[in-house]
Amino acid sequence: MGCSSDDAKLAADVLLKADLRGIDSHGVARLIGYVRLWDKGRINTKPAIKVIHETPSTATIDGDAGLGLVVAPFAMKIALEKAEKCGSGWVAVKNSNHFGIAGYHALMAIEKDMIGMAMTNASPLVSPTFSKERMLGTNPICYTFPAGSYPPVVVDMATSTAANGKLEVAQRKNNPIPSGWVQDSNGSPSIDAGELKEGGSLLPLGGDRDHGSHKGFALSASVDIFSGVLSGANYGPWAPPFVAFLNPLDNAPGEGLGHFLGAWRVDGFRPVEDYKKDIDQWIARFKDAQRIDDSQPVIIPGEPEYEAEKTNLLEGIPLVQSVLDDLNSLAKRFKLSGL
Amino acid sequence: MGCSSDDAKLAADVLLKADLRGIDSHGVARLIGYVRLWDKGRINTKPAIKVIHETPSTATIDGDAGLGLVVAPFAMKIALEKAEKCGSGWVAVKNSNHFGIAGYHALMAIEKDMIGMAMTNASPLVSPTFSKERMLGTNPICYTFPAGSYPPVVVDMATSTAANGKLEVAQRKNNPIPSGWVQDSNGSPSIDAGELKEGGSLLPLGGDRDHGSHKGFALSASVDIFSGVLSGANYGPWAPPFVAFLNPLDNAPGEGLGHFLGAWRVDGFRPVEDYKKDIDQWIARFKDAQRIDDSQPVIIPGEPEYEAEKTNLLEGIPLVQSVLDDLNSLAKRFKLSGL
Repeated sequence: MGCSSDDAKLAADVLLKADLRGIDSHGVARLIGYVRLWDKGRINTKPAIKVIHETPSTATIDGDAGLGLVVAPFAMKIALEKAEKCGSGWVAVKNSNHFGIAGYHALMAIEKDMIGMAMTNASPLVSPTFSKERMLGTNPICYTFPAGSYPPVVVDMATSTAANGKLEVAQRKNNPIPSGWVQDSNGSPSIDAGELKEGGSLLPLGGDRDHGSHKGFALSASVDIFSGVLSGANYGPWAPPFVAFLNPLDNAPGEGLGHFLGAWRVDGFRPVEDYKKDIDQWIARFKDAQRIDDSQPVIIPGEPEYEAEKTNLLEGIPLVQSVLDDLNSLAKRFKLSGL
Repeated sequence: MGCSSDDAKLAADVLLKADLRGIDSHGVARLIGYVRLWDKGRINTKPAIKVIHETPSTATIDGDAGLGLVVAPFAMKIALEKAEKCGSGWVAVKNSNHFGIAGYHALMAIEKDMIGMAMTNASPLVSPTFSKERMLGTNPICYTFPAGSYPPVVVDMATSTAANGKLEVAQRKNNPIPSGWVQDSNGSPSIDAGELKEGGSLLPLGGDRDHGSHKGFALSASVDIFSGVLSGANYGPWAPPFVAFLNPLDNAPGEGLGHFLGAWRVDGFRPVEDYKKDIDQWIARFKDAQRIDDSQPVIIPGEPEYEAEKTNLLEGIPLVQSVLDDLNSLAKRFKLSGL
């Protein structure tokens, strides 16, 4: 596509990390989507990414319409440099595109004994409580906490009840979905996974007002304001869609998609060894919490992804046929050897 | 109780702000609870609050077992001073007590055109997904975003599906509660508001795994790690209970309750006037989102509390008889005039 070799490697690394961690929806399966956006002229493969505003602990970056897979690590590096110098570092990003899994960027903090954070807004698919309009993306929040003898605690979650990938799986199997995941185009509750293709929308975490959907909405709104409003990117219904067959709305108030990334040095608050002793005890105690079903222990956030990564590094990444076909069609187009 | 006049006024201000904003559960109704903790020797009314660790943008504070109502504003002031100087400021607090509404502290950022954040851990009442043990508090997350011509956007939410106060209201009226709020002592779903008094527990936002309770758990866990582990306070099941009739657990790994507070300067990222233009447009667009029911618009986070404050400032704060009785019994004990 014209990316520099370094950028191409970095983007591949971000996608592969998703597949390794078992988050197939955000891995190489997305490659064809990025290429389609580039076909539409919506991705700049030679971006001049630059800092356009800064203080000792904060900055804003213009991603120059680059791949989010490249822009976000650039931004996170600056956040880490600022944290190195003054305890914490924060970077708002505008004029970017889909950045893959939030976890990749926030995990960059771990090796430096920092706590990482990453957020992004995304294609509008989620309705606020009391609305039937798609106003928000699945807007993920990610925190990564380094640990001592355990793997890091990694919170990496869409602020909708369910991510789009889960709907696609249910739809493929023709299974009904739990209540609280989607509503139809009139805003009525639905258990039909196909609803999204009929003008329906995803619901914020909680599902409905009785079950706390106003909280999921509030979290998603916060991610949108940090990523879109604070950076000068687009926000709400103007967030540019990931699928290339939908065009961004007219009268866009900002530039591209937005992210918000940052890190705190653990030793900005207490000695790393004291923190690590306590986080290890935290993890051990939660793993040991009384079970409802003896066979199912409490799952520490990030544990399944850590296990998937260990397995996939040994055994390889399983790919479904449709993804393999997409990759081979791309290989053919770009005159590369197929899989 | 022996607080300095300044501390007493500040603590009263925090409690009254909750009542003004319509969050009765965290207002003067709690005063008797703080007095009971003091009776038990668990609150130090003359604390020597001090910074024990810092970098240019971060600090840790030892609250010296003071009232959280006093310790948290002290910490937030330091966060704001640090943000003034280097763009953002972060303070972890250990050895504190219940700090009232998170919103009070995070709102301190608004008048300085900063985005505020406040978190705290709390008495263990919430079970992680797959567990029947009370391991976490209702651990709130609060973000405050300044606006231009609109009131600020204020996200101030427990990370459980429902806060304890809502259960108490249902119980008083003998009403069943929605599924996903509580489970019984065996970890079975329940719609009985009295379950908490029978050894049951509150559920993380989402309610059950199908509805995303692992996300509510992950958020609550994040609040616990920031507030307890990063600061050196207690965490998980060791977080000291608010009710004085329960004693803190033995072998506590840290000191007191923990908070995590901070702020980002808006102009650490872009000019305030540009941000305000966009946040106003964000608010206007979300208020205007297509409704499911014509009579019910989308509610912007913080809007109901803002409206309550306007009304209560004019008409006074409505108090239920039991709270009035408690206040009058305290007045009698401390030889003050009653209400």
